[in-house]
Amino acid sequence: MADPISRLQRLLRRRRIDAFLVSQPENRRYLSGFSALDHSINESSGFLLIPKKGRPLLLTDFRYQLQADREAGRFDILIYQRGLLPLLKTILGKLAVTNLAFEPGYFLHAKYLLLAKLAHALPMQLTPLDGQIERLRLIKDAEELAAVKRSVALNEAVFKEIYPTIKPGQTEIEIALALENAMRLMGAERPSFDTIVAGGPNGALPHAVPSHRPLAPGEPIVIDMGLILAGYCSDMTRTIVLGAPDSHTVTLFRLVRQAQLAGLAALKPDVPGRDVDTAAREVIKKAGYGACFGHSLGHGVGLAVHEAPSLSSRNKKLLRPGMIVTVEPGVYVKGWGGIRLENMAVLTELGHEVLNRDTTFLDL
Amino acid sequence: MADPISRLQRLLRRRRIDAFLVSQPENRRYLSGFSALDHSINESSGFLLIPKKGRPLLLTDFRYQLQADREAGRFDILIYQRGLLPLLKTILGKLAVTNLAFEPGYFLHAKYLLLAKLAHALPMQLTPLDGQIERLRLIKDAEELAAVKRSVALNEAVFKEIYPTIKPGQTEIEIALALENAMRLMGAERPSFDTIVAGGPNGALPHAVPSHRPLAPGEPIVIDMGLILAGYCSDMTRTIVLGAPDSHTVTLFRLVRQAQLAGLAALKPDVPGRDVDTAAREVIKKAGYGACFGHSLGHGVGLAVHEAPSLSSRNKKLLRPGMIVTVEPGVYVKGWGGIRLENMAVLTELGHEVLNRDTTFLDL
Repeated sequence: MADPISRLQRLLRRRRIDAFLVSQPENRRYLSGFSALDHSINESSGFLLIPKKGRPLLLTDFRYQLQADREAGRFDILIYQRGLLPLLKTILGKLAVTNLAFEPGYFLHAKYLLLAKLAHALPMQLTPLDGQIERLRLIKDAEELAAVKRSVALNEAVFKEIYPTIKPGQTEIEIALALENAMRLMGAERPSFDTIVAGGPNGALPHAVPSHRPLAPGEPIVIDMGLILAGYCSDMTRTIVLGAPDSHTVTLFRLVRQAQLAGLAALKPDVPGRDVDTAAREVIKKAGYGACFGHSLGHGVGLAVHEAPSLSSRNKKLLRPGMIVTVEPGVYVKGWGGIRLENMAVLTELGHEVLNRDTTFLDL
Repeated sequence: MADPISRLQRLLRRRRIDAFLVSQPENRRYLSGFSALDHSINESSGFLLIPKKGRPLLLTDFRYQLQADREAGRFDILIYQRGLLPLLKTILGKLAVTNLAFEPGYFLHAKYLLLAKLAHALPMQLTPLDGQIERLRLIKDAEELAAVKRSVALNEAVFKEIYPTIKPGQTEIEIALALENAMRLMGAERPSFDTIVAGGPNGALPHAVPSHRPLAPGEPIVIDMGLILAGYCSDMTRTIVLGAPDSHTVTLFRLVRQAQLAGLAALKPDVPGRDVDTAAREVIKKAGYGACFGHSLGHGVGLAVHEAPSLSSRNKKLLRPGMIVTVEPGVYVKGWGGIRLENMAVLTELGHEVLNRDTTFLDL
């Protein structure tokens, strides 16, 4: 298979686009290898300009020059002093660009208004082009799959390192810190999202922020953790119990695990994403907890921790070999707490392969 | 002074706007107290809808319901199931909104196209309204200033806790981790940005990412750190040396410190932000290092770690009492390293007050 830049350039020529301005951070990294992070969408560390043929460009500012030189060897590096637009104006003129594609899904409307003004002045046509690089990213090649597997394995190693040290009386924040520390010390670039440790009632918030609340024996404790290794993300949830769980906890835990297994059983190529969601959701609905499972079953994982494809009631598209997804049903009860179990799997030609090896707290 | 929501509602009535859709995360927190974070601009934890009069609304999804109830007591909480737009359609109809303001500076162009379609169907006018809430945030009231001071004090306490433990041979990542750990254990919500620890040549990248490189005695080590406490940010840079610095390091260190003091001497109300930048920059230019100081002198700090006003050659606007800024000149030499010193100061009626108390490694 041709490399992504050549494939993209072919697409540009086919659509009579002269160049493509890439602003989305994971797309930027996917094509260039440039790994700088954006503090926010308003503080981008750089943009790619992919001409329809020839060497691609990386536009960045002074602060990232050395890193760009080091990481994006295939790109010409250009430095802007006064922001993207003045530099862009010069380059687009030189390259005689009359049709520029950009990514409206990661381009602020305020910036678009400025770009449109520039386009009007040149003149130049603007073509919205979302999802094209994401479409390339959707199917992981062997190298990417190996990178995700390493990320998952490291994430599990971190959990195994910290899990035996967790004691009642420790706070959620202490555990989250211990996990994120171990991630970095064991070689991760960073957590792929803010680690969630949510004990007892706090677990009823699917996106709980760790608090100073001490963990108590017997209560379910949701631990949702992931890391980035060589750019690729992992994402895993375990719900642990310190000491003996009561029978209500055991019942709900088994229900969520059954839902996860039902989801996995439905996970194979040529099935729409929503069917996998339905397969897991039905198990929880039949047990009378349908209203307690308010999020979708899963999402794609790669350079971004949340990317396509989604396993949700809204996704009618067919799954394909090489896609990587999470399968993470949950049950959340206000005042009591929550249980969520999450593994990652890759779609294969025949079905899927679960990427997680560790089985700690998958069965209660 | 009236509270921000009343001031904003008055502005809306004056401009004949029926409601204001707020998407920018710090603006959302400023007005509502809702502290949930957005994983990215594509995964917002919620939006505010401020009608021209009456109770404001917080629109969020199921995952954040409990947190919203807990934190945004003054707001009516509405939950969307299928994203913002379908819910918005219903509410805008009920409120008979014919002119809706939104924030183009934090609104994706792709989302704008959907909003414009909805506006066309209703019909309803869309009014771009950037910078209005930021303008309120620009001047900190007594309560906010106290919060920033607590954030700065905690940040300094963290530095004092970790600084004496730093030894040659430790890696940049280890130190960054120790600092971020101490932040959270000592009560911070989180770091306000990724902590920078950059020794020797790595210090030549103003936005260096901590590496596994061990720290060596004698070399300058740039430590740029900040935290968030009760929503408010701190930001401080020290350049430390383990053991004895050589005379080149001492010379450059003193140059940067002189530039910082020159910047502070120029920092007072009714002066344009750029004049403060110039005052510091001249010191570095005169010593022949002008080309080695490639970023602006400083930026505002509050709910966001980077906000208005900027101390840069581009900011012609006058500074005012109650504004809080960083003053952070630096000198970066490729292959050798960097030196940066950063304190925060609040503009007062007569001049300014430096918010930092600690003077460790301010003079070499």
